Amino acid sequence: MKKNMLIAQSGGPSSAINASITGAIVRGMASTKIGRVLGAVNGMQGFLDRKIIDISAQIKTSEDIRLLYHTPAHALGSSRYKIKAGDTDTYKKIVEILKEYEVGYFFYNGGNDSMDTVNKLAEYLKETGEDIVALGIPKTIDNDLELTDHTPGFGSAARYVGTSIAEVYLDTRVYPVPACTIVEVMGRNAGWLTAASALARDAGVPAPHLIYLPESDFDKDAFVRDVKALMEKEDHVVVAASEGLRTKDGEYLGDTGAELDMFGHKTFGGVATVLESLVKQNVDLPKLKTRAIQLSTLQRAAAHCASLTDLEEGYHCGYRAVEAAVNDLSGVMITIKRVSNSPYIVRYDVGDLSEIANKEKKVPQEWITKNGTDVSEEMMDYLRPLITGETSGMSEKGLPRYFFFDLERLV
Amino acid sequence: MKKNMLIAQSGGPSSAINASITGAIVRGMASTKIGRVLGAVNGMQGFLDRKIIDISAQIKTSEDIRLLYHTPAHALGSSRYKIKAGDTDTYKKIVEILKEYEVGYFFYNGGNDSMDTVNKLAEYLKETGEDIVALGIPKTIDNDLELTDHTPGFGSAARYVGTSIAEVYLDTRVYPVPACTIVEVMGRNAGWLTAASALARDAGVPAPHLIYLPESDFDKDAFVRDVKALMEKEDHVVVAASEGLRTKDGEYLGDTGAELDMFGHKTFGGVATVLESLVKQNVDLPKLKTRAIQLSTLQRAAAHCASLTDLEEGYHCGYRAVEAAVNDLSGVMITIKRVSNSPYIVRYDVGDLSEIANKEKKVPQEWITKNGTDVSEEMMDYLRPLITGETSGMSEKGLPRYFFFDLERLV
Repeated sequence: MKKNMLIAQSGGPSSAINASITGAIVRGMASTKIGRVLGAVNGMQGFLDRKIIDISAQIKTSEDIRLLYHTPAHALGSSRYKIKAGDTDTYKKIVEILKEYEVGYFFYNGGNDSMDTVNKLAEYLKETGEDIVALGIPKTIDNDLELTDHTPGFGSAARYVGTSIAEVYLDTRVYPVPACTIVEVMGRNAGWLTAASALARDAGVPAPHLIYLPESDFDKDAFVRDVKALMEKEDHVVVAASEGLRTKDGEYLGDTGAELDMFGHKTFGGVATVLESLVKQNVDLPKLKTRAIQLSTLQRAAAHCASLTDLEEGYHCGYRAVEAAVNDLSGVMITIKRVSNSPYIVRYDVGDLSEIANKEKKVPQEWITKNGTDVSEEMMDYLRPLITGETSGMSEKGLPRYFFFDLERLV
Repeated sequence: MKKNMLIAQSGGPSSAINASITGAIVRGMASTKIGRVLGAVNGMQGFLDRKIIDISAQIKTSEDIRLLYHTPAHALGSSRYKIKAGDTDTYKKIVEILKEYEVGYFFYNGGNDSMDTVNKLAEYLKETGEDIVALGIPKTIDNDLELTDHTPGFGSAARYVGTSIAEVYLDTRVYPVPACTIVEVMGRNAGWLTAASALARDAGVPAPHLIYLPESDFDKDAFVRDVKALMEKEDHVVVAASEGLRTKDGEYLGDTGAELDMFGHKTFGGVATVLESLVKQNVDLPKLKTRAIQLSTLQRAAAHCASLTDLEEGYHCGYRAVEAAVNDLSGVMITIKRVSNSPYIVRYDVGDLSEIANKEKKVPQEWITKNGTDVSEEMMDYLRPLITGETSGMSEKGLPRYFFFDLERLV
């Protein structure tokens, strides 16, 4: 007997998140075991409100599939909803709704928190003996999921960060005055994306000159000393800094609490602004120009700079999740295993959600240089294959083209 | 008798500035009237210090030409050097150096200020009867030069702004909470680039919902009222604001002087932060999320998102400048005249530098909607052709490739 499948998305945006649901949709629509492909609007939050659309009725042409594949940021919407530990009532309600919509296959496309939700749901389904499977499809620009070599979304964000750092350097070097530019990159606890700034060097520029990851304690004095030493040799210094930098005492640099705007609110800018101030305050050079740049949400959804490798892997993760589900696997997430770097070959596998949920894979200390201001060659070898390949998401008009679900057309 | 040509670059970076010198170099190297193609390092400032390189000796292969064409931000370096009015001594020195290097053809690639310099130089050369011509090659992302339909560099920056605004909107709309995002765009006195944010709508998104150009007086009360009214209908509002917004009384919004960081310095962020604060302070919605994004220098040198039309036009401006020079024109800048929009056809012409120097072409009032929060369909027709065409500046590795002159190898 055919059962429906349902997919929901959660967490923060990425450029590959819809490539993943595209893979799941294509595999789901082709399966003899699957009836309708449904989608929950705004993740678990919308699901609990029965905000459910019929994806198979809305995806009509191969062009729709192509556009969805290239569209960044949750086409089904997201939420930050987290089910509390031991909240059996909510899991009971989820199962009620799944049965109501005749869903036999549930997929959650997200990061650590989402994997926790789907893990608990899978356990509850098993305990209660329901004939429904629940699986995870990995997604996060933070690249911090356990058991997988990397996560879809990371490669495109990494490409954007590396490219932007190269361009920021070319921009700053044109003036014959000393300049120190701090670029703040996302990743509160894991420094993978900040590490990707080092890819700029493959474009032939010396930037970034210093790289600070949250995996290393940040030492303000050492930072000032390093910038000063560099600026004795180089006029144009670019620093890449993770938004999550903290000192040995655990104090977040971006959380000074001292910066209030004229209305008494916290001002825009965190770590980059603080580091810029440290440079201004302590580096005494005539005409020194400092600048803080936040890559902000631009780095999450910059599909115009996506990596084809990343989108393809996102697609495969979604596709394989449905394949695993129709083979009755549950409580797992699709993982990517790297077979070799050159040629770059991966294979797909499944990992137990209980080993992924709520864990964060950090950058290994061996991949950070001893002084804590750069990454190792192993890191570069790891990063390089993930950003390759051009995508075809731009139209002849010079602008991206997107697919939009009608999120009001509920079933 | 052959004479050398010399080219210098000035002002702020753009993605097309080196496409322009590529055109000039190619034409110069092909000319029977021209000996060596020289370049001044860091504009007029470096020129006066005799920091001059032999470009014809450094450009060796067609691949060098291809890479230079795609490299953003002055490959020869820039400066903000401005010659004071009536400073005859400096012009005398310039001529001395030009003669010393046997230069018969001088080109300055820059914006309004640069056109003033080359205009005065051309006048001085004429008065003193020197057999040297001086011409301007337009460049500015601000698009504010007179006599030309638009300026090389603008189209690529416009494409980046339009694309980024679309991506920022997709990013913000995924969460089921009301959100107001303010994106700050460059252009202190002319709003062309901020107007280009409207191109995002051609990607199918409703953003930007409000557009504020420096050509209209900014009214804080009207802004708050407009955002409130919008947010009664829409959950996710994106505002594009020029960095140069000012009130009816001429007060720059980004210059409040009230925002000091913990070290007593002005904090990062100008207009976007101020508008964000206005929203936070005055728009009372549960869970309202506000965000200020500065496109910062990212918008100037984002060659990875360049418009091929823009690079081609930049190239032609450089090429035609040398053509005009060997035909003994002086005191002119190459201009672009739009023949038709569809098909998009331009022709090149020359304009008198005295009519360009120190002037700023602003957005006409008819192209701004009456309420001052949007642009007209005429503006859209004007903008659309300028951002078309994909470039081939990215390598197979997923990163841009650049050409670098050896700026230390002086002649």
